[in-house]
This record gives sequence, structure tokens and C-alpha cells, in this order.
Amino acid sequence: MTYESYLAGEPVVVTAALTGGVHGKEANSNLPETPEEIGKAAAAAEAAGAAVVHLHARTPNGERSFATERFQEIDDAVRRYADDVIIQHSTGGTGAPDEDRHLPLRTDPPPEMASLDMGPLNRYDHLTSENTRALVDSLHEEMRERGIKPELEVFNDGHLNEVYGLLERRELADPVYATLIFGGGTLTRPRPRNFLNAIDNLPDGAQFNTLGFGPHQLPFAAMGVVFGGHVRVGLEDNVYYRRGELAESNAQLVERTVRVAEELGREVATPSQARDVLGL
Amino acid sequence: MTYESYLAGEPVVVTAALTGGVHGKEANSNLPETPEEIGKAAAAAEAAGAAVVHLHARTPNGERSFATERFQEIDDAVRRYADDVIIQHSTGGTGAPDEDRHLPLRTDPPPEMASLDMGPLNRYDHLTSENTRALVDSLHEEMRERGIKPELEVFNDGHLNEVYGLLERRELADPVYATLIFGGGTLTRPRPRNFLNAIDNLPDGAQFNTLGFGPHQLPFAAMGVVFGGHVRVGLEDNVYYRRGELAESNAQLVERTVRVAEELGREVATPSQARDVLGL
Amino acid sequence: MTYESYLAGEPVVVTAALTGGVHGKEANSNLPETPEEIGKAAAAAEAAGAAVVHLHARTPNGERSFATERFQEIDDAVRRYADDVIIQHSTGGTGAPDEDRHLPLRTDPPPEMASLDMGPLNRYDHLTSENTRALVDSLHEEMRERGIKPELEVFNDGHLNEVYGLLERRELADPVYATLIFGGGTLTRPRPRNFLNAIDNLPDGAQFNTLGFGPHQLPFAAMGVVFGGHVRVGLEDNVYYRRGELAESNAQLVERTVRVAEELGREVATPSQARDVLGL
Amino acid sequence: MTYESYLAGEPVVVTAALTGGVHGKEANSNLPETPEEIGKAAAAAEAAGAAVVHLHARTPNGERSFATERFQEIDDAVRRYADDVIIQHSTGGTGAPDEDRHLPLRTDPPPEMASLDMGPLNRYDHLTSENTRALVDSLHEEMRERGIKPELEVFNDGHLNEVYGLLERRELADPVYATLIFGGGTLTRPRPRNFLNAIDNLPDGAQFNTLGFGPHQLPFAAMGVVFGGHVRVGLEDNVYYRRGELAESNAQLVERTVRVAEELGREVATPSQARDVLGL
Ligand SMILES: [Zn+2]
Ligand SMILES: [Zn+2]
Ligand SMILES: [Zn+2]
Ligand SMILES: [Zn+2]
Repeated sequence: MTYESYLAGEPVVVTAALTGGVHGKEANSNLPETPEEIGKAAAAAEAAGAAVVHLHARTPNGERSFATERFQEIDDAVRRYADDVIIQHSTGGTGAPDEDRHLPLRTDPPPEMASLDMGPLNRYDHLTSENTRALVDSLHEEMRERGIKPELEVFNDGHLNEVYGLLERRELADPVYATLIFGGGTLTRPRPRNFLNAIDNLPDGAQFNTLGFGPHQLPFAAMGVVFGGHVRVGLEDNVYYRRGELAESNAQLVERTVRVAEELGREVATPSQARDVLGL
Repeated sequence: MTYESYLAGEPVVVTAALTGGVHGKEANSNLPETPEEIGKAAAAAEAAGAAVVHLHARTPNGERSFATERFQEIDDAVRRYADDVIIQHSTGGTGAPDEDRHLPLRTDPPPEMASLDMGPLNRYDHLTSENTRALVDSLHEEMRERGIKPELEVFNDGHLNEVYGLLERRELADPVYATLIFGGGTLTRPRPRNFLNAIDNLPDGAQFNTLGFGPHQLPFAAMGVVFGGHVRVGLEDNVYYRRGELAESNAQLVERTVRVAEELGREVATPSQARDVLGL
Repeated sequence: MTYESYLAGEPVVVTAALTGGVHGKEANSNLPETPEEIGKAAAAAEAAGAAVVHLHARTPNGERSFATERFQEIDDAVRRYADDVIIQHSTGGTGAPDEDRHLPLRTDPPPEMASLDMGPLNRYDHLTSENTRALVDSLHEEMRERGIKPELEVFNDGHLNEVYGLLERRELADPVYATLIFGGGTLTRPRPRNFLNAIDNLPDGAQFNTLGFGPHQLPFAAMGVVFGGHVRVGLEDNVYYRRGELAESNAQLVERTVRVAEELGREVATPSQARDVLGL
Repeated sequence: MTYESYLAGEPVVVTAALTGGVHGKEANSNLPETPEEIGKAAAAAEAAGAAVVHLHARTPNGERSFATERFQEIDDAVRRYADDVIIQHSTGGTGAPDEDRHLPLRTDPPPEMASLDMGPLNRYDHLTSENTRALVDSLHEEMRERGIKPELEVFNDGHLNEVYGLLERRELADPVYATLIFGGGTLTRPRPRNFLNAIDNLPDGAQFNTLGFGPHQLPFAAMGVVFGGHVRVGLEDNVYYRRGELAESNAQLVERTVRVAEELGREVATPSQARDVLGL
């Protein structure tokens, strides 16, 4: 996937990261937290053009949860309100026991996709999200068994190198689908040059998605469109619509992304088209 | 530091990583393990052109050790055999308690330099070298108090971003000195493009050193010379002289590096020149 | 000018290349050719958000002309219809005598800006647009005398190197303003990587503008916005609105560019703001 | 050809540009000018490790000549003194009639290789070396007829784009062999980043050679080795051995290049190996 894919007008898959597991309504009161809110947000994001919703679960008091039941409630609500959107569960979770990280894969039916963090990164000053190879492999194994497509989350170019290791250790279904992530902390610095460099380091035939945190969400989405990849936006990664103005909804962020993609000449993939593109 | 530094013929600081803490004589019987062996290897490396020796300590049976006493024995041997070489202690150590990581800073006198790993990385499949920001800060604080120059070890571009965070949290003496590291695992993939990209992402005014693991040691040293930086070689990072031929000594690897640097037109820094360059 | 300029929301100067001197109404009947048509097109482009109009002149039968009188007629029409737009005359012209290339600078008043092609390039198979250094210098000298801001047209990275030569031979008013051009023939290949590389090779403090020919006009305008530069669009460089659909007008192309720039968070410069940015 | 070619230890073809057509003994008295001098220089260069000699011809008073007879005399001398070295004739020549540019192809036997300048560039302030597409095509046609391998000389990234045009217009024997040239004037600025960028823009399957002018000869040769390409050195491109010290001979420059290549782990191709690599 490259600029040539852009020139060819290949469809772009928009993922909406609706809620996340870190900040909540204290950061933006429009961020959906309950299954009901997330279900409705998924429907609105789909109507706006998102083909995939990236989901985290929370307990009733808003704290992060890995429980299968929580994900089940959310999925049920998403299916109730949305039409055909692809469900992607996060398996991320700093500091959680490895066993808990598997729980989001065990809904019925399983999600069509699930995230797979490709390596360690700092969270705050005292915590590391470890994501050992052993965990990566066991999560991948369970995804394989349940027919879940992994979304490889690449937070820096060390993680990108770990993708090659994973490909040596295990067989991945085509196409490899990796999200190139840009921001502060232990992430690759959000610069256009670094984005192109990351793309050039992908394994042959891989498809890439991208996300930038905070003020980088919009420009990285635009670059993702022009560089021929897919894009993720949403309140998990960015709570502002523009400097100093909180976003009204996930759908508002998706709508702008769709306007930009279409203005720049790429079709936005429906969930059905996205299934083709991603090999679901 | 850039190609312009190369064109100007600025001196290159060669660091010899003599022993490491992972593989030992089972990988190459010429790898020095005891204080006596390390002291002699340091002298030979200095005679060959190394200005800095990067040191790890081991117990008598060859296992990794963080004990101040072990480093003291090694330093004493280095000072006995070598002339003026700069001593750099590793503070790295996967899985060790944070407190142990401080011990290599407490020799008398303290080392002129010490390594500071800038973030987490995988070690094998089940272990993560965490290197939390809290540990980075406390190590840096003790280095500051003892007048030890930190060598920032950057294993991937997420670590490079952490350098910016460190510069925001703490004051670093000029120049910032960072080692850009290339290899497998959670490291930046060893490619010329990735090396240039890493250089471009350094903070203004930073000096860079580089090392590539295994077969990448030699080409990354050559590129380090042409790209205007400093270079590290040695048996810690690579036990071969060329494909299929084990290195005879650290000095042999340093000698080749010196020949390449001089052939390419850069002077090799004496320890005294290196102190000027690095602001010791 | 870089991604940081984008993040800071610095205003983007949009130039409309209304007519050119190569293709005419046979390529797109909406392309303005007469002074009257060009004047009205300039007004519409300005209303749409263009701060600068880049102009060529033609004889009444549509052929390229360098005559001062033709440019005078066009300027008069532009001033009659448009409000405050900045006039930029092309001094390009393959195969014309050097003396003719000076004529577009001699209107009364002179244009605020004029193009300055930075080196040779192929036109068709038998012709070279020479643009010798002697011509570049003499055009620059006359621009300096008349208070005309040069727009340095950079068709490849050899031309970019010639910019450094020009800066050594002559004094250029701040900021240096260079248009990075991408397309086929002797131009830099239109790829995102090549665009970033060209930006990195600009002299310190230079401002850049960009244009891509044909299908590259739109993505290079979008990248120009995100990479922190200025952009040029118009029927001289591209006669299509999208694949297979001819553009209705220069204004239509400007309008889309403005929508993209504003959607991506950059303000579009008024002519007055553009004068500040460009040091007119 | 990439860093992977370097890692694989693929042989590097060293070309010696013995004499050139611009500067002569006034720049360095060791520069060979007569057929006799050039023949001996070719033999010494071959003995030092050059597989190819790049040749220009001069009149007895040292001025540039395109005459077939002059090239014949030189080739005869080269064959007399040298062993098996590959002869490459320059077809370059600013300001010469197109017809004259064909003359170097007409020796008996024809040279195994000949240079083919891929586009226009400035020579001094008033002159352009045009190298129109029509000339490129007619030179290529005669090379094809005579079984001469073209060495595509790429002076900037516009020329690199012209390579694609040539490939569309005409059939080129595999592999395409292009020399990426770096220096001042209308050439790509000599920077490592620009070298890697040029490599990335080559057509699939192309082999590259490189040369840097003056002080850039040595570092670009070293980078050429590490980046997996071939290299050219010699008194045509650089008359110094190091800053302030004139080179003693072409062979001296070749010897250093060979030392660097071998020290860095690449074998230096014999003429016979070079024929295999270049498809002669
Ligand atoms: Zn998430
Ligand atoms: Zn170490
Ligand atoms: Zn024009
Ligand atoms: Zn030549």
C-alpha cells in the first residue's frame, strides 16, 4: 500500500476508536462509556462512514474491564443499534494478568477483529505495558482458533521489527494488517518522515492503518489517505475537534475524516468492502 | 552531527564494548570475563584506538553481576593495564531490581560515563527489560550527583521519543550523547534509511554514537563514520570478525574500525579528545 | 516550514495558475486565454481563496507571448475584476531568446512577483528549456531593480542545488520562496518521499510552495498543507477536477483546495496576509 | 540492489574514470592525457582492482575530442597495456553537435560500454549540456546495434525520472545500469539522504553505480559499498587524495576504494565477474 494505491483510488477503511480505556467523560462528556452509549456511538460512526469500531470495555463505574461479559454487553448493544459494522475488540491492558488479556476474545460470536499490541511501551512513569512475545503468541493463537483477524498495533519501529519476528514464529493470514501509531511517550515521534519510514519498513503485502494521538489525529488521517493506507479516528485517541474545541461525538470525527478522504479522491469502504480488503 | 561533520573531519570516538552480560566464552572464547581479562582487553582496545570502554560485570562463574565491588575490581584492573581510557559502566539489566541498577554508579572513583537505557524492550520471549521513566530519572539523578556522563541507549524510535521526555523532565549536560542501536527483536531494523531517520529525529545539538548487532556491527560503524557520528564495536555486540570467523579479540574489532575511519578521512579521538567532544 | 508550521496553523498561501502557455481551450474549454477571460478567472479564484494568480500571456490566436503589452492587458483586466490579488508573471519560455524572457517584468506597475526557473529541463523530445545561470542572474537582477519577488521554480533536485548557487552569487530578499514541482519528464518523480526530501534540502528559512501536475495536483496540495507549505493549483497544471471529469474553472480547483486546507486546520491567507508571509 | 546486497557480500564493480574531458594536467599533473598515458593508467587501475575504465579522448594539445580515431588510439593502448579491463567510452559533451556524440561508439571493436547522459544540466554560467531525448534515443539505438551496454548517467532526480521515460520508449537489456552522481551545480546535493532517496527511485531490478565529485568521491564510494551498489573513482571526478594532497594516480584512488570495499566485506569484481553482473 503506497501512494500508488491512493492514485488508484482504492477504498480507505475508517476505524472509529469509540471509547478507549484510559480517559473517560472527565476528558470529554461526549465519550461513550456504557454499552448503551457505545452501541449508539457505533451506529452513528457507521452511519458517518466507519467500517470498523475499535472497542474497550468498562465496569459500570467507568473503570477498564477485560471481562468477557462486559464485551458481550457492548457487542449486543452495537449489533442492536448499528447495521453491519465490523467489531474489533482491544486486547490491550497495561498491568493486567496475561490471562485477562484473552477474555475479550471469548464473546459469542467472537469479534471479527482484535488488537494485538506488538511490544512493550511505557505507561506513565512507573508502569510498562509489557506485551511479551509469549503473550503476543498466545493471543494470536486464540485469535487464529476463533477466526479473529489480528490488528497489529505498532507503537514504534521496535514493534515494527517484532512484526517480522511474529511472522517467523507464526503463520499470519493475508493480508498482514498493522496500525502505525504516532504520538508522545514511547511512540514514534509524529512526523511525516517517520510515517513514510514506517511504511517502508512494513513486510511485503502488508496493509497499514494509522492513528495519531491528540492534535496528530487529523493530519495523520489525511496522510494515511494520501499514502494509500487506512485510518483510525475517535475519542479514544483524541477528544478535540479542533484546538480548544471538544469533539461532539465520535461520529463528528468520522464525518470529517470521510469528507477529507472523499475530497482527496478515495472512496470510503463500507463494512462489506472492508471485509474484502482485510480478508475477513 | 551530520555528513558535514564528516566532511569537516571531526574526530570519531570509538567505544569498545568488551564483555557484555549476556553471552560469554561459550560464544567466543576470546571474550574477556574476569576483571583481569577485561583490564587487559581494555588496554589492548585503547592501544588499538578506543577512547571509551563499555563495561559489564560478572560473578566469578561468569553470570551477570550488578555489584559495586565487581565493577570496582574491573575498574582497578582497567586502570592498572590501560593508560587513559574512559570507563563507561553499563546500568542495563533485564529483570533486576531497580535498586541493583544503581550499584554500578558507586565505584570509587565513579565511572566517567554510564549507560542509560531509554525505555522498555523484549528480552527473549517471556521477559521485558522495563526501564521505566522512574528508573531512568533516578539513575540520571545519581549520575548527575556523581558527575557521570549518561550515554543514552536508544534501541528504537520510541526510545528516541523518550529522550525528548527526559529533556523536558530533567536538565542534561551538553552535549546530549545518544547511542542509536540497530538489530533484531524490539530494536530498530538495521537499515541505512532507518539510521538516517533516527539521526534526523535527535534533539538539536545531540551527538550520536551507533552500534549494530552481529553482522550489522561493521556496516553501521562505517555509516556512523560517514554520517558524522561516533561508533561502538566489540564482543558484547558481535563475536565474529567476518562471516564464519570468530573475532580474536576486542582489539581486532577496534583496529578494523580505526582503519576504516582513517581510510575514510576521520581522525580517531584519543581519550583526551573524546573528553572534549563529550563534555566530560 | 515544516509539519510544525502545520501544527501551528500558519496560513497557507494558495496560488492559482490560471492559464499557462502550453495547452489551451483544446484541452479544456474552460481555460481562460484572453485578457478578459483571465481577469474574470482571477477574480473568481480570489473570491475562492487564492491570494496569488500566476499568469502567462498569449497572442489573440492563443499562442504563447512574452510581450510586455500582452501582460499589461492581462494585468489591467485582473485589476479591473479582482480585488486585491497578488499578480505573478511567468518568465518561463522554452526556446525564446533570453531578451524576451525579461519582457514580462516590464509592465507598469511591475508584477509583485515573477517566476524564475532554476535550471534546464526537457520539453518534448527535441527541445530543452535552458534557463542558464546567466539568464537566471539577469532576470533576478531586473526583478531586484523593479522590486519584484522571485518565485524560484524548482523542477528537480538539481534545480534545488542551483538555488544554493544563486544564493552564493546574489543576495535574495527574505524569505527565499521556492516552488517544488512534481510530475513526469525531467521533473522529480511525484512521490511523498521525494517531496519530504526536497523540503529537507531547502536552504534554512526558505518558504516552500508546491505543485504536482495532472493527477498529482490534488494530493501534492494536500501534502503541501500538512507539511507546512503553500500550494498552487489551476488549469495550467491540471485540467481535470477528478479522473475523467474536466474542471469547470480555476475557481473550482481553488475552492476544493481551500476546503481541504481549512478542513485540515490551516487558515487560507488573504492577499494581505500573503504579502506578510512572502515579504512583499 | 540494497543493503541486503551488501550483507550478502555481492561483488562490487569498481570503475576508474581516468581522464575526463574538462580539467587536465593543470589540475593534477598525474592525470593521463595521451593514449599512451591512458593505456598505462588503465593497466595500473586494473591491477589495483578496477574492472571498468571510463574514457574520454583528447586532441594532442589536450582538448576534448569526439573523434573515433582518438578513441581508437586510446583503446589500442589500453588493450596493449591492460589485461582484461572493460572499456567504457564517454558519449558526453557539452555544446558538441549531436552527430559528434555518436563517434565514440564507432571504434573497432566497439567499447563494451558507453555512457548515456540522461538529461540537461548546466555547465558554467552560459552553457547547457542539453542531452535531449532525441539524442538519448539515437545514442541508445546505435549502442543497441553495436552491442554496447549503456551506463545511464543520472545527475539529478529529474534525470532519474527520464530513465522511466527511456524505459517506456525503448527496450533496455537487463539489468538497467545507472550511475547516481552527486556534486554541485545542477547535480543532486551530495548528502547521504539524497543518495538513499535516489536508490529508492530506481526502476525495479536496476543496478546502481555511484560517484561523488571532489571531496564527495570517497564517502560516496564507501556508501555505495554499504548500500549495495557499485562505485566509480578517478581523476576525472576528483584530483585529490585527501584535503590538500593531490592524488598520485588513478590507481592510488582505486587502491583505497578496494581497501575500503574489502575491509567492509565486499569482494571486488574482476572484469570477468563484472561482465556477469552487468550482463555484458
Ligand atoms: Zn484501544
Ligand atoms: Zn552493554
Ligand atoms: Zn507557468
Ligand atoms: Zn566522463
